[in-house]
Formats: sequence, C-alpha cells, structure tokens
Amino acid sequence: MNVENFGASERLVNAAYVRQGAQGRRAHELCLRVLLEQGKCPENGWDESTIELFLHELAIMDSNNFLSNCGVGEREGRVASGLVARRHYRLIHGIGRSGDISAVQPKAAGSSLLNKLTNSIVLDIIKLAGVRTVTNCFVVPMATGMSLTLCFLTLRHKRPKAKYIIWPRIDQKSCFKSMITAGFEPVVIENVLEGDELRTDVKAVEAKIQDLGAENVLCVHSTTSCFAPRVPDRLEELAVICSNYDIPHIVNNAYGVQSSRCMHLIQQGARVGRIDAFIQSLDKNFMVPVGGAVIAGFNDSFIQDISKMYPAMSLENLDKHSDMAVTQLGSMLFTRQVSGARVVPLGSLQIVNNYTFKGFMSHTNNYPCAYLNAASAVGMKKQDVDLFLKRLDKCMKTFRKEKSNGKDVPEMDNCTKHTSAGETED
Amino acid sequence: MNVENFGASERLVNAAYVRQGAQGRRAHELCLRVLLEQGKCPENGWDESTIELFLHELAIMDSNNFLSNCGVGEREGRVASGLVARRHYRLIHGIGRSGDISAVQPKAAGSSLLNKLTNSIVLDIIKLAGVRTVTNCFVVPMATGMSLTLCFLTLRHKRPKAKYIIWPRIDQKSCFKSMITAGFEPVVIENVLEGDELRTDVKAVEAKIQDLGAENVLCVHSTTSCFAPRVPDRLEELAVICSNYDIPHIVNNAYGVQSSRCMHLIQQGARVGRIDAFIQSLDKNFMVPVGGAVIAGFNDSFIQDISKMYPAMSLENLDKHSDMAVTQLGSMLFTRQVSGARVVPLGSLQIVNNYTFKGFMSHTNNYPCAYLNAASAVGMKKQDVDLFLKRLDKCMKTFRKEKSNGKDVPEMDNCTKHTSAGETED
Amino acid sequence: MNVENFGASERLVNAAYVRQGAQGRRAHELCLRVLLEQGKCPENGWDESTIELFLHELAIMDSNNFLSNCGVGEREGRVASGLVARRHYRLIHGIGRSGDISAVQPKAAGSSLLNKLTNSIVLDIIKLAGVRTVTNCFVVPMATGMSLTLCFLTLRHKRPKAKYIIWPRIDQKSCFKSMITAGFEPVVIENVLEGDELRTDVKAVEAKIQDLGAENVLCVHSTTSCFAPRVPDRLEELAVICSNYDIPHIVNNAYGVQSSRCMHLIQQGARVGRIDAFIQSLDKNFMVPVGGAVIAGFNDSFIQDISKMYPAMSLENLDKHSDMAVTQLGSMLFTRQVSGARVVPLGSLQIVNNYTFKGFMSHTNNYPCAYLNAASAVGMKKQDVDLFLKRLDKCMKTFRKEKSNGKDVPEMDNCTKHTSAGETED
Amino acid sequence: MNVENFGASERLVNAAYVRQGAQGRRAHELCLRVLLEQGKCPENGWDESTIELFLHELAIMDSNNFLSNCGVGEREGRVASGLVARRHYRLIHGIGRSGDISAVQPKAAGSSLLNKLTNSIVLDIIKLAGVRTVTNCFVVPMATGMSLTLCFLTLRHKRPKAKYIIWPRIDQKSCFKSMITAGFEPVVIENVLEGDELRTDVKAVEAKIQDLGAENVLCVHSTTSCFAPRVPDRLEELAVICSNYDIPHIVNNAYGVQSSRCMHLIQQGARVGRIDAFIQSLDKNFMVPVGGAVIAGFNDSFIQDISKMYPAMSLENLDKHSDMAVTQLGSMLFTRQVSGARVVPLGSLQIVNNYTFKGFMSHTNNYPCAYLNAASAVGMKKQDVDLFLKRLDKCMKTFRKEKSNGKDVPEMDNCTKHTSAGETED
Repeated sequence: MNVENFGASERLVNAAYVRQGAQGRRAHELCLRVLLEQGKCPENGWDESTIELFLHELAIMDSNNFLSNCGVGEREGRVASGLVARRHYRLIHGIGRSGDISAVQPKAAGSSLLNKLTNSIVLDIIKLAGVRTVTNCFVVPMATGMSLTLCFLTLRHKRPKAKYIIWPRIDQKSCFKSMITAGFEPVVIENVLEGDELRTDVKAVEAKIQDLGAENVLCVHSTTSCFAPRVPDRLEELAVICSNYDIPHIVNNAYGVQSSRCMHLIQQGARVGRIDAFIQSLDKNFMVPVGGAVIAGFNDSFIQDISKMYPAMSLENLDKHSDMAVTQLGSMLFTRQVSGARVVPLGSLQIVNNYTFKGFMSHTNNYPCAYLNAASAVGMKKQDVDLFLKRLDKCMKTFRKEKSNGKDVPEMDNCTKHTSAGETED
Repeated sequence: MNVENFGASERLVNAAYVRQGAQGRRAHELCLRVLLEQGKCPENGWDESTIELFLHELAIMDSNNFLSNCGVGEREGRVASGLVARRHYRLIHGIGRSGDISAVQPKAAGSSLLNKLTNSIVLDIIKLAGVRTVTNCFVVPMATGMSLTLCFLTLRHKRPKAKYIIWPRIDQKSCFKSMITAGFEPVVIENVLEGDELRTDVKAVEAKIQDLGAENVLCVHSTTSCFAPRVPDRLEELAVICSNYDIPHIVNNAYGVQSSRCMHLIQQGARVGRIDAFIQSLDKNFMVPVGGAVIAGFNDSFIQDISKMYPAMSLENLDKHSDMAVTQLGSMLFTRQVSGARVVPLGSLQIVNNYTFKGFMSHTNNYPCAYLNAASAVGMKKQDVDLFLKRLDKCMKTFRKEKSNGKDVPEMDNCTKHTSAGETED
Repeated sequence: MNVENFGASERLVNAAYVRQGAQGRRAHELCLRVLLEQGKCPENGWDESTIELFLHELAIMDSNNFLSNCGVGEREGRVASGLVARRHYRLIHGIGRSGDISAVQPKAAGSSLLNKLTNSIVLDIIKLAGVRTVTNCFVVPMATGMSLTLCFLTLRHKRPKAKYIIWPRIDQKSCFKSMITAGFEPVVIENVLEGDELRTDVKAVEAKIQDLGAENVLCVHSTTSCFAPRVPDRLEELAVICSNYDIPHIVNNAYGVQSSRCMHLIQQGARVGRIDAFIQSLDKNFMVPVGGAVIAGFNDSFIQDISKMYPAMSLENLDKHSDMAVTQLGSMLFTRQVSGARVVPLGSLQIVNNYTFKGFMSHTNNYPCAYLNAASAVGMKKQDVDLFLKRLDKCMKTFRKEKSNGKDVPEMDNCTKHTSAGETED
Repeated sequence: MNVENFGASERLVNAAYVRQGAQGRRAHELCLRVLLEQGKCPENGWDESTIELFLHELAIMDSNNFLSNCGVGEREGRVASGLVARRHYRLIHGIGRSGDISAVQPKAAGSSLLNKLTNSIVLDIIKLAGVRTVTNCFVVPMATGMSLTLCFLTLRHKRPKAKYIIWPRIDQKSCFKSMITAGFEPVVIENVLEGDELRTDVKAVEAKIQDLGAENVLCVHSTTSCFAPRVPDRLEELAVICSNYDIPHIVNNAYGVQSSRCMHLIQQGARVGRIDAFIQSLDKNFMVPVGGAVIAGFNDSFIQDISKMYPAMSLENLDKHSDMAVTQLGSMLFTRQVSGARVVPLGSLQIVNNYTFKGFMSHTNNYPCAYLNAASAVGMKKQDVDLFLKRLDKCMKTFRKEKSNGKDVPEMDNCTKHTSAGETED
C-alpha cells in the first residue's frame, strides 16, 4: 500500500481510520528500515506478521514474480508445484551467481537482498557472541563437514605443495571425512589426559609440523565444541604456532556459537595468533533445520575467496561489459522485462580462475557472427514464446529505425536461427 | 485415524457416513502404498491434499515430533521459529548421517523414508526420460557445479596420480570452476565449427590423452545440455575413448533430463563405452527452486562412494555394535524415547576412510572408564533436563536390581560428571 | 499410514526406526481417540502438529476430497481458489443440513464430526467454568445479538400471543437491537443505584409483568457481563420470578464464560428458578476471531428447537425414506461415489414445520412420473458429466438385467430429460 | 517497502536491480489501486502472490496488528492460537459495528476496507451477470435461508399488521423454514403443469392476495433457481402484481447468479414491476465454502435497513459526539494507540431504533460522574495493564497542566475506581 493506495482507501473507509492503518504500517516498515540500514540482529525479535510481510516484499522484487515478465532463459524461477512455491515464499532463484555464492542475482533483487541481510545478521550475532573482531562471514547451504572441505579446497590453491592437515583428534566422523574428501592426508594428534579431561597435545602438534615441514602442511584443523571428556582445543597456543610457522588455521566450531567459552577461545586465538576461518553449523547454533553452515573469518579477501570457490549456484551470466551494438539489443530486452535472453557479441574476453577465454559465451574463439540465445526450457508456455517474439520484434524495429538514422546497428540477418540443445523435443 | 478412531467416530456421526469417510481415506492410503511398494513416479500427479497428508504422516515419524520425546543430544530437531518449522512441514532432521548422505537417520524415520523415496522416484524419471539402464542416483542439496566437484574429489581417491581433466569447451563458468575447486587442471579442448554448429573435436581429445598419459587424466568431463550454436558433445565417441583408455567419464547434463536428445546420448554412451556419472540440476529439470542436483550412474558402488564423500550432514553416531553392559543402558534409554544420550564404552574400534581409531568416541585410545554423554544444547529446557534425569534414574535402578540378580552391570560411579563443552555458559 | 504402509516402509528404512515412527504416530492417535471417546476439552492443549493432522484426517472424510468422487449436485464443495480451500483445511461443506444447524451432513462426515466435537468440547468448558448442570449447547456462525434474535424467534412459536420482552437496561446496542429485529417490543427496566453500583430493580420487573400480563411477555432478557458501574443482573431473583410467572428467561452472557462470577450466577439462577438459554460470544471468551456465539441451556429439547430454527445451511435433502424401486437407483449411485443426484419418487409425503407436503421434492402434489435430477452447476467440468453418465449407464444396465430376472424396476423411459433451471446458459 | 527502504536496499544490492524490483512491486500496487479506485471485479484474476500481499497489507492496518498497540477493551482481536490467526490472515476483528453489518470498524481499517471492497466487487459481478440496475448489495455470514429471514424481519417493521407470505411452492426446506423462523404464515400456491414443466400459477397468487387483503400480506416470496421439472417463477407477472397491490417482493435466487436466465428474470421483474430484494448463496455461485449469502436490491435505503437489522457483530461504541472535556481524554488515548478504553461522559443522549436513552453508556439516566472504562478481559497480559496505566498517567499529567493553564479539564478524582464485571476473578 503506497500513498496513492491509502488515498484511494480513504474514499471507502473513514480517512482517520485509514490514516491510523497507514501509521500501523509504518511501524512495520520502520523495523525493515532499521534492519536494512544497520544490518544487525533486531534487539527484539520481529513478530511473524512483520517477517512474512518482509518475505512477501522481497519475493515481489524477484523477476519470477513480476506480473508481466517474459522469461526466455533456461532458469526463470518456474515452479511446477504451488505447494513448493508457497513454502519458499515464492523466492525461487536461490542465491549467488556464476559460481560466487555471495554475488548478487540480477533476476532476483529480493533474494539477493535476503542473502546479504542474512550474512550481515549472522556476522552481528557472531560478534555479539564473543568474536568481536570477525570481519566477514557467509551462510552456505551445506553441512559443516562439506564447508570444512570447501575451506581446505580453497587453501589448496594457496599452498599447492601441501598434502597434510594437522588434526588434534576428535571422534566425530564428518570433520574427519572433510579432510579425506578434500583429498588431503589427516595427521592425527592424540590428546593428553589431564585429570579426567582430554586436552590438546600442543607439543606434539609443533613437533609434527617440524617433522613434516611447514610448507607440506595445508593447515591445522582444530576443534572447539565437543563432548566431554574432551575439552576444546588450546586455540591460543595452536594459533601462535600457526602464526610462527605461517600455516593456515581452520577451526571447527560446529556448535560453539552458543558457548561463550568457545567464542572466547576463537577471539583470543585470532588476537594472539592466526585463525583463517572458523566454521559453525546453522542448526546447532541457530535452531533451524539441518543443512547449513556459516564460514567466518578475520580476513575479508580469504573469506571471499572461499565464497567464490562454490560453483554454480547459477548458470547465468548477464555481464554487459561489451560496448558493441548488439548488447544494446540485450539492454532493450532487459528493460522491457524480457529475462533470460543472452546476447552473444563477437570476441568477448573473459578470465575465469586465471584462465582466459576468447569469444566467451560462444564456446569458441572465433564464431562468425554475434547472435542472441533464448532457451526453450521446460515449463515455458506457448504464450511466453509469443510474448518474447512480439517484444523482440518491437526492439528490432526500433533498432532498424535508429540505424537508418545513422546509429550503429548490428547485422544479425546473416545468422541462421538456433534453438537451444536443451530443448524438449517431444 | 485408525480403526479404533473411526469406531469412536461412529458414535458421534452416522456410521454409514463415517464408513464412507474411512473409504475416502483408503484411496489416499492406496496412493501412498503404491508409492512405497513400487518407488515410482505416480502416473497421475497426487493432489495437494494427498501430498500434505503424506508429509504430515512422515513428520510425525521423526523423533522431534514425538509427543513424549526427551532429547538430550546436541541436535534434536529443535526449531526456534514456528514459521520455519511449518515451512519444513516439521521435518527438521535433514537427511543422511555420519557423512553418508544416503544413510538412514535413526532419529528421523520419516525424513529418511522421504529421502529414499525421492531418490527412487528420480531414478524412475531418469529411466522414463531415456536412460533406461541407469542403476543408481541420489539427490544432493548442492548446485550442479558443486556436485561435479564432489564427483572429481571421489575420483581422486581412485586415481591418486591424476592431475588433469579433459574438458571440451563450454562457456559456462560454474562447470569450469567445479574442476578448479576440486584442485585439478582443466585441459580445454576447443570445439570445431561444422556448418554453424560447434561440435566436439574427438580427435583432439584422444590426442591430448595420449599426450598427457592416460594415468595422469582424472577423467573426461563432457556436456550435453548447452546453448546453440554449441551442440551436445559427441558422447558415444567420448565414451568409447574413455573405455579404451580406462579413463572415468563424468557428464554434465545440467538441464538435459527434459531433453530426449540429451538423455539418448547418455544412454548410448553408456551402452557402447564408459560413463561413470552424469549430473543434472534439479531446478532446471524438475521446476523446483534453485539449489539441488542429481548425481546418477550405471555402477552402484561408485555412486555410493560419491554419496559417502559428502561429510557431515550429521554429527551423530548411534552405532550399537558394542556388546558391553554399558550399551544396555543406552538401549534402555533409547526405547524410553530418550534421544541423543551417548553411551561411550571402553575400547570401541572404528574404521573411518581406512583410518583405524581405537577407543572411538572417547577421543583417545584408552580412556579410563566408560561413560554417558548428554548435551546441554541451545534450545533445551529445564523440563527436558528434569525428564532426562528422571528416566535415567529409573534405568539406573533397574540396572542395579539386575546386577544384584547376578547380571553384568557397568560401574559408572567412579567417573565424575562431565558436561559438554558446547554448553551455554551464561 | 496404516499397517500395510508401515510394512512397506520397512523395506526402505530400518524396521526398528519405522516401528518407532509408528509408535510416534500412535501417541497422536491416542490424543484423537481420547477426544473422540470423551468429547472433552483436552487437559493439555494439543500441539499444532496434532491439530493439523486431525484437521487433515477430517478433511479427507468429506466427499469433496474423495479422489474418485463424481459430484452432480449443485453443492459439491467445489472451490474456485486454492488459497480459499487451504485456509479452510479443505473442509468446504459447512455444517448442518436442511435448516438444522446441528444435523449431520451425509456428504461431509469429517465436517460433521468436527461440528459434533466442537459442541461437545464447548459444553465441557461451560461446565468447567461453573455452570455444572448445563445439558446442551451449540456453536452458531452468528454474532451474539443475532443469536439472541434466534432465541426470541423460537420462543414466538411457543408463546404466539406475547409481544413484550422485559429488559433491565444495559447500554449496549446490539442486545437491544436483537429484540427489535425479532419483532418484539423491549420494555426497559431502569437500574437502581446502590452505592456507586447500578443494580437490577427486581421489584420493577415483577410489577411490570403484572402490569402487562404474564401471557403477553415473551421472556425476561437479562445480562451478566457488563462494564462497571453496572453490575450483573440479580439472576437468582429474576429466575425465581420467571419460574413463578411461567415466563421464559434468556440470559445475555456475552463475555461471561471467562468470569467465575457470571457463571456462578447462571448456575444459581437455574438451580433456584428458570433459565431457558444463555448466550455467549465466541471471540470474547475463547479468543478466536469475531463472528460466532454459543447458545446453551438446561433443557435439551428447547436448545434443539433453536438449532432447528436456523434455516438453510444446506439445500440438500437426501432422505431415502421411500421404498420404491427408483430409490434403489439412488442408492446404487450413492455407493458408487456419485453424490448430488436426486431421485424423485412419486407421491412422497413430507412434513415441514407442521405443514404437510404431498409429492415433496417434485414441487407439486401429483407429478406424472418419478425422475432423477442432476445439476449442471458452476464449477462442474465436462469430465464430471462424462463420468456421471458412465456410472449412471452402468447402474441402468444392472437395473434392466435385474428386471428381466423378475425384479421390480422403475419405468423411466417415458419421462423426458430435464436439466436444472440453475444451469449456466452461456 | 517504501521509498526509504528501497533506498536503503540500494546500499546492499546493485541499485539497478533494486529499482527493477521496485518496479515489480509497482505492478502489484497498480492492481490494488485499480481495485481501490474502481471497486470492480478485476478483468484478469489476481495471482495468489498479489492476493496474499493485499491481505497482508490490510491486516497490518488493523489495530490488533499494530506493533505498539495497547488494547484495554474487551474485544481487541486477541487470538489464543497462532494457527487460527494465520488462517484468518490475522484479520480478527470481523466486520460491522454496533449492529450494522456494513458499518466501518474504527479498530480495523483493513478489515473494513476488505468488507467494502467485497460488497463492491459482488455488486459489479451481479451487474455483469445481468441485473444491470441493481444499486446495492452486501455479503452476510449467514446461509440463504437465514438471510431470507432477515429480510422478512426487516419488512415486519414496515408492515406491522402483515402476517402472511405468498409463496409459490418450491420443495426445498430452508426457504420454507425462513418464513416460519421469521414468525410468518406461509401461504402455499401450488404450481401448474404446462407440458412437463411446473410453472407459477399467477392467477392463484393474485386471487389469494385479494382474498387475504393486501395489507395483511408481508410480501411475495418467489424463486428463480430450482430443479426441473419446476422452472423459475414468472417473475415479471409477480413483480407487476406486487407493484399493483403495493406489496413487497423478495426473490430467492439461491444459485441463480451463474444463470443468465435467472438474472434476466430479475432484471425484467425490477423493470416492469417491483422487486425489493433478491438473495443468493455465496457457495453455489462463487465457489467458496458454505456459509454466506448476498442480499441485493434496487433501493439503497431498504438494503441498508436490512444491513442495520443484523445485531451485534460488535459490542463497541466509540462515538465521540460529546464535546465535553472528558472526551478529550478519550481522544488523547486513541491517538496514543490505546484502544478499547471507553470514556463515559455525563448525560449523553442516544437514539436506538427510535428508542431514546438518556445517559447512554452509563446504563442509567443520571449517573453521578463521568468516568473511564477499561476491561480486564481474557487474553490481556500484565504488561498490557502496565502499558495502559503508563499511557493514561501521561495523558492525565498533560491534562492537569492544561487545566492550570486555564483550559477546561474534567474532574475525575471524586469517582472511585471501577473494574469491569466481566473480569476473570480467579
């Protein structure tokens, strides 16, 4: 309900009451605004009504909920089941893009905003819980173990020679597997019994590093949260060793956010030594369903590196860096709410993970002409195709007119029509 | 509504009508039964009412929905927000266990059933879509690219020397990143232009394999679904080459399930040559929100290997292999609906990824006594603790009585009490 | 999930876990059973999961949720909007039948059961709240005032000469209007000031009765719950006067269920004198949305009379009292899940409110033949018609066969086909 | 999301995408605006996302959803069960007020708006369906039969002498009962058989009117929608007779909106003769659950009279007609979001249904002082009471200050404190 709508309402219902209603709305909007501006965990939990309103507001910012959208990509947030759409609050696009889980989704401003806010709130909570100097974190739709694996895989690119991970023993399968899955050799450091507590054998860790050679050690992989009689690792001492030997340090903080002791250990470790990332489970700390984790750290660029290692949340690439005329056509379609059409100009250069691709998006170095792709994807309807062709036609006419007026217009006529190989053929 | 309840209903409402109502119920139950027995995609889509009933039925099979459950583990399906619980149909436990995403969850029979059925239905659909000889598949809560990464990581353990992945070029970032993330070096094979189509340069692939040495090649990574002018890879020829050189073959079939052409290519490739796994996106083929993929293949044990590489959906380990008396106590608690209590016997042996752990779960080779762990986790309430202590007390009494009757009972008295390091301290 | 389905599940998931899941289900079923058997307000509030399961169970007992139902009536629980169906838990048929709001709905065993249980629980709560000797009550989808009107209208038939209602003043519009709407003349008795309290002027009430003549007084209409400085009416004294003069007594107990004082007054009034019915609002006592009321009393037949005064929750009439052959056809269709078809035999006699209708349902005393009605109602689909004709055809064939075997079969051929006047014509 | 919030979002997510999201929102808002301005049935059905957004927007305009509301009335939209609140989209206040079902609810601007729009849309549909000259209609939460009863009860006040209702026979119980319930004597006119159709015996109707005397006839009660072989009544002829004899004419159009024939008959009847109101069922015409009806007509004031006959959707009365100082206090509380507090000035005069009440709201003609009422209702919490007292205290202080500045301030100190009789006492 915007100003005009409240105005129109006053013709139906006593203006004083409508105005009080509008005031009621402002209180909810104020909650949103504080969150959007500060990005912090609200002091008082929002009531469900505010939460649902916000989710609804975000959803209608996503292109799949545009009333007049014409989607011709292979991924347009089409959902077969209403039941599925509803339980996702019609936020269908997921998060991230082109293999960067923290990137903004052009088709999904609402989903992107939700993702940014989520990470921002979680960061605030981690600070409040005791790790005051944390600088960056992001939520991943993976379990803790897989998140550890992702950290190890990211480190591999920084330490190509390293094969070993130093791991003070904790009898829990998934964190052990996380090292195996990443392709490294865990070096188990047995704990020492002090009283009835099992504690980190710091000397054995250091001895093993010297033994293996620091450059062959990918990282130290320590643990905070654990079941008695094992107690949290001596994080300060381990962090100092890592700092001294220039070895990365990854902390498994699976269910430690809720424990001021675990969080204090991480804060101290980072203060006196080195901690590269610490990983926590979402379900065990935030009381949500199983299946997510938070990767956090003290160095922005390393945490971003990890987030860029997660491939493929999205296949799409709508980069509009080319200044060629054909990209004008793409822009025209975009502003006319045609989503998913890909304009492929000639000779576009793209660097991915330090590999350079010439003619990127055309799958070859020198394709003979520029062209436009639209996908005949599952869930697309005849009327979608008709609408697309109508809008495309309109754009082409404007184009030709501009050309006859002396503007630079691409030649597309000598290219035959293609359809996507992903089409449904029967 | 079971038989007794329908009977009780007949005292309130005309028996003939109740019986017709019961008959109406049976039609829904029959749908469930056909699904449970055949594990196939229903010929006629279920209506929402049947789907919701089934989800509800599954949810109440999970321990977090047991009306008298006493959960003392760190992960008991506690959910802070009712809104979150509802949108998950109160299925909170996630899937998998101890790093095996396909394993059954002891605490969550309903969630486990849903997982098994999902994989079974998806397998049926893959067959119906054209890959008739597929033998196994599973759904992962990861994007296509990350799923490809998981396949490559699994192959690493089978081919420890291999460093390269042969990849006929397809200009799409995430599948490229999937190789980088896994720590391998992509070897790009440029496509050849035939007419206006870009096709696989099969000869270049074979030449490159010979050049690098087959044993140094982790796999060939081919693609079916793609945008024109690139067409699907020549899968048959690639599969034959892989077979000849004994090289694994992973197919990126991102949005190919909906295309009879792509599916036919995979079926043919597997028939004449070698395909180890093919990966497809859930959203693009099944019209669901972004964020899942299906990993499928023709060899049961390899697909299972991949599923076991996914660490940590779950931290728990309720193995009851020990025959020591202390485990009796664990069983007693389990049957009294105490979930999450861990009995740690002495000297348990566990092999994880070929590493042998002595005294597993006690974090050391020789802990001085057997003991029992309960977690004071976030979300636990005072009444949960009270109920747990009451039930524990009862079990202990029964135990002591049996002891005085000559049975073998563990000595736990000389062990001091521990609390989990994961406890909330303030 | 019935026994067979749990059995089938054990082939997919560890039997021990499935059995625990089945046990979990039984706890919910036990809640249902206790409710169905005792009809009382549960001691511990059900959790949402049990409530939703129960509503779901009830919904699938209604014919509109039968998977293979063929509805040919004008009212078959068809709903245009899924959103509307969901918020009603797919319970669409409403309650009551043929002008009796407490009657069972043949098409809706689940809805009927819910209605019976609701009334039973509310009765239990009224007892617990202090009116221990209440014998009957029912919930009406009307506000308190309209419910009072319904009581007065019912009394009119018992006291045709009476024109006046004696009403100790309470400044609240709707209870005053309730008398006007029912067509009676309120006789306002001013209150007397005792201290700073306004109390019933009992003497003035009795004097007015004598003045008007008891036979001209429809009832005394008293009030319990009210705002200070007015206090609840002197119910005991009023009840004694009503008893002495043989005048009905209706109590407006709008928000009195929550007040032990108001409830005590009603109990005492009924013990020492006469109270015919007491009416309470649902929203103010039970914290539900506005729009419902409870009519309760101490005499079964009077409360039932009121419930039968509420016309038309339902238009349907499936009475199957005739023993003519044509009704056999109706039964055959009914057991084949054809709902809504009306068989109209010759010469059926029906008494409604003491009026006798000959040839009831044929709209005339002597229609020339028996016939069958099906409605071409809004929302009906071509496939519904086809399915109906198919099932009808089958029944007719069976019929003719039985006839040739000597059984009595109706002649329908000489009747032309009719369609309902309610059909959509364009 | 207002302008500020979109602005704040642009700091988190690419401004271009946010702006596109804002544009997406505008399309939904435009739907709302067209509806609010035109009050007509949308040409294209809204999608669920727009409907839910609108319902959500309306809900937060109601005082029970104000984030800082302090409700001290007995009816504040408190709901015990979240499940119930959700299925009502948190619209709890119902509709209407003080016995006028079409009146605006001060506490519920959103609910009131929804009610106005509903009636407006239904009016538009009735016009589109063929009754082009209809001028007014309203939806009632009652079945068709009860709605007919309400019409008859309204007519009673206009024709106090009339006892009979002329009714061409239609064999359907509830419409017959509607007359009995209202306290009238139905005069059944048998139909005549023409061919195989049963049609109105117009001559018999006129003869019966002459026989009984027009002034003794409350109305003619005719029927459009019916099952064959009865056909719709001869509405034109009946309407002419009603006009000639100056007798009201009520039409039972139960499931006739969907039938162009029935609607045409009504339009013609109103054109050539007299039709006062026509009643239709919601479920049979609009495919919604059972339990509502529409009362429509051609004369604004008569239809409004009917709507004012429905007592008591609401008990509240916040009229602020008095200009006494004490009402200033009431206004102060109202603007400070204190709802439900009733200020009772001295000597207020109120006319209800032509009865004049002196000192209205104080339950007596001359209460010694003005006072303020707050209800200690069920569902109220200690913090509500505290907040109320705090805000009241603040208002009182402002008051006293203004007094010392020479303004007129009420004396309340000499009045003792009262609490509502509706309070919970244990």
